[in-house]
Amino acid sequence: MNEQVLFHALDLAGVFAFAVSGAVAARRAGLDLFGILALAYITACGGGIARDLLIGALPPASLANATVLGVSVLAAAASMLAYRSVERLDTPVRLFDAIGLGIFAVYGAHKALLYGHNAQVAILVGTITAIGGGMARDILLARVSIVLERELYATLALGAAAMAVLGNRLGWGPLAGTWLPVLACIALRYLSLRYRWHLPSFRRDDDAD
Amino acid sequence: MNEQVLFHALDLAGVFAFAVSGAVAARRAGLDLFGILALAYITACGGGIARDLLIGALPPASLANATVLGVSVLAAAASMLAYRSVERLDTPVRLFDAIGLGIFAVYGAHKALLYGHNAQVAILVGTITAIGGGMARDILLARVSIVLERELYATLALGAAAMAVLGNRLGWGPLAGTWLPVLACIALRYLSLRYRWHLPSFRRDDDAD
Amino acid sequence: MNEQVLFHALDLAGVFAFAVSGAVAARRAGLDLFGILALAYITACGGGIARDLLIGALPPASLANATVLGVSVLAAAASMLAYRSVERLDTPVRLFDAIGLGIFAVYGAHKALLYGHNAQVAILVGTITAIGGGMARDILLARVSIVLERELYATLALGAAAMAVLGNRLGWGPLAGTWLPVLACIALRYLSLRYRWHLPSFRRDDDAD
Repeated sequence: MNEQVLFHALDLAGVFAFAVSGAVAARRAGLDLFGILALAYITACGGGIARDLLIGALPPASLANATVLGVSVLAAAASMLAYRSVERLDTPVRLFDAIGLGIFAVYGAHKALLYGHNAQVAILVGTITAIGGGMARDILLARVSIVLERELYATLALGAAAMAVLGNRLGWGPLAGTWLPVLACIALRYLSLRYRWHLPSFRRDDDAD
Repeated sequence: MNEQVLFHALDLAGVFAFAVSGAVAARRAGLDLFGILALAYITACGGGIARDLLIGALPPASLANATVLGVSVLAAAASMLAYRSVERLDTPVRLFDAIGLGIFAVYGAHKALLYGHNAQVAILVGTITAIGGGMARDILLARVSIVLERELYATLALGAAAMAVLGNRLGWGPLAGTWLPVLACIALRYLSLRYRWHLPSFRRDDDAD
Repeated sequence: MNEQVLFHALDLAGVFAFAVSGAVAARRAGLDLFGILALAYITACGGGIARDLLIGALPPASLANATVLGVSVLAAAASMLAYRSVERLDTPVRLFDAIGLGIFAVYGAHKALLYGHNAQVAILVGTITAIGGGMARDILLARVSIVLERELYATLALGAAAMAVLGNRLGWGPLAGTWLPVLACIALRYLSLRYRWHLPSFRRDDDAD
């Protein structure tokens, strides 16, 4: 019971962080007040909506849920009121965002399994849950998604979702099957930011085979 | 009965206007004939398709409906044949577009309620029905959506959808529950264009809290 | 039976070609390794996922199917290992891509009919199956979709889907109802590349009516 409360609280922390990132990006792009609110909400619930469409859970929970909408509006309002502070508080925002990433990936994978889908669907849907909101934000701002080009991010979501599915298949309890992947994702995200880890990429003009 | 005919006629006027805006935008971006037809159709029915996916009404009505497809093709053809006139007729096109905005928002909200969804889903789905086509058009043209950054537009769709849901909950008849929000949306859109009303936004380099 | 094996083999050739085009485009845009894999996979299965969402076939087959994922990863790996060769082998890649275009259009249309949808839905869904992956690739790379602006491409997919639906309605056998549209699409695509056929478009500054 207490665990569910904690999980729910962290989920809302993730919603808050994702909404802040959407609101700040919208303001930087010069959108109006509606655009800022819309982008905050879409960043926070876009991944969950994609998840629910893909697994057949209609209506999408985050569309029907007043808390997610409320937290998104609150996050957008807070970001605008304290815009300079938010920009200064880059690290806390990124930590919240990492919490959202881990929670969304693991919860998305669990929900797909709950709806009877196979392990591959669950892993992919978990990843989409975690990165879909950020991708929708970047698509609407007409820019190549940060999610796809920077640092360890989507890869960690994929890893967390895979670990959650593995834990489910092997009958691990909630500690190893839920909390371990969430915490591993958050910790690795934090370390990757601190030590600038990133996946290999290729120079654009790379001519070697 | 007559009312339904009128509603249907206005709905097609909205489809026509949305298709014109898609075709004109596609031509401006240098797309070929298929691209122009595709963008006209997507702008006209993209919002309705998103609506039907979200509320679980498959297949999406505007995908299955020959009239919507026919009107879109007609609108695209007319826009290309009379391209200069269409550019000159900016105001009538915007008025049609405002009709589409109001009709789509109210109809989308009503349809979501009809499928048993709650008030929040109905309001959000109504808004998405009204602005989804324009957003799809701008995403495909790789530009930040006008829908999110200019004038009173999406906000009016949200307001019309909310008023329609409120009317349904309070048992208003079709006059106040359907026609009032549609007309209010059209009138406010017209006034906002005429008097250049817009939502507050922030300067990009705004340094104040 | 043999026919089904051949169809399946060509389908995987299409998946491979689409994945290669996604991986190459991702590398050109400077995405990291995850971005390259993700774009390969999305280009290969984006159209099929859209198809299955629109016709109500959940979970989307290409999300649940390990072969499609495996072939996409393989194609991405091969493209990166032999990047210069792939760039040199432009023609074979385009031929594979043409195979994918024809197969996806015809298979998408057939699947929509199988799920009980009408002819218009089947034709549109077939077209979306064929071009959806390429559109998703270009949306994620924040560029106007090549699918909409270049050469005979989407039009051929539309033609192939329409011919497949016509064949189904008129009771043609698999030779005329499946293979003929697939081969016609591939042949016309090849010829259009070789002889630079394209649909009419309008000059951007065209001032004539």
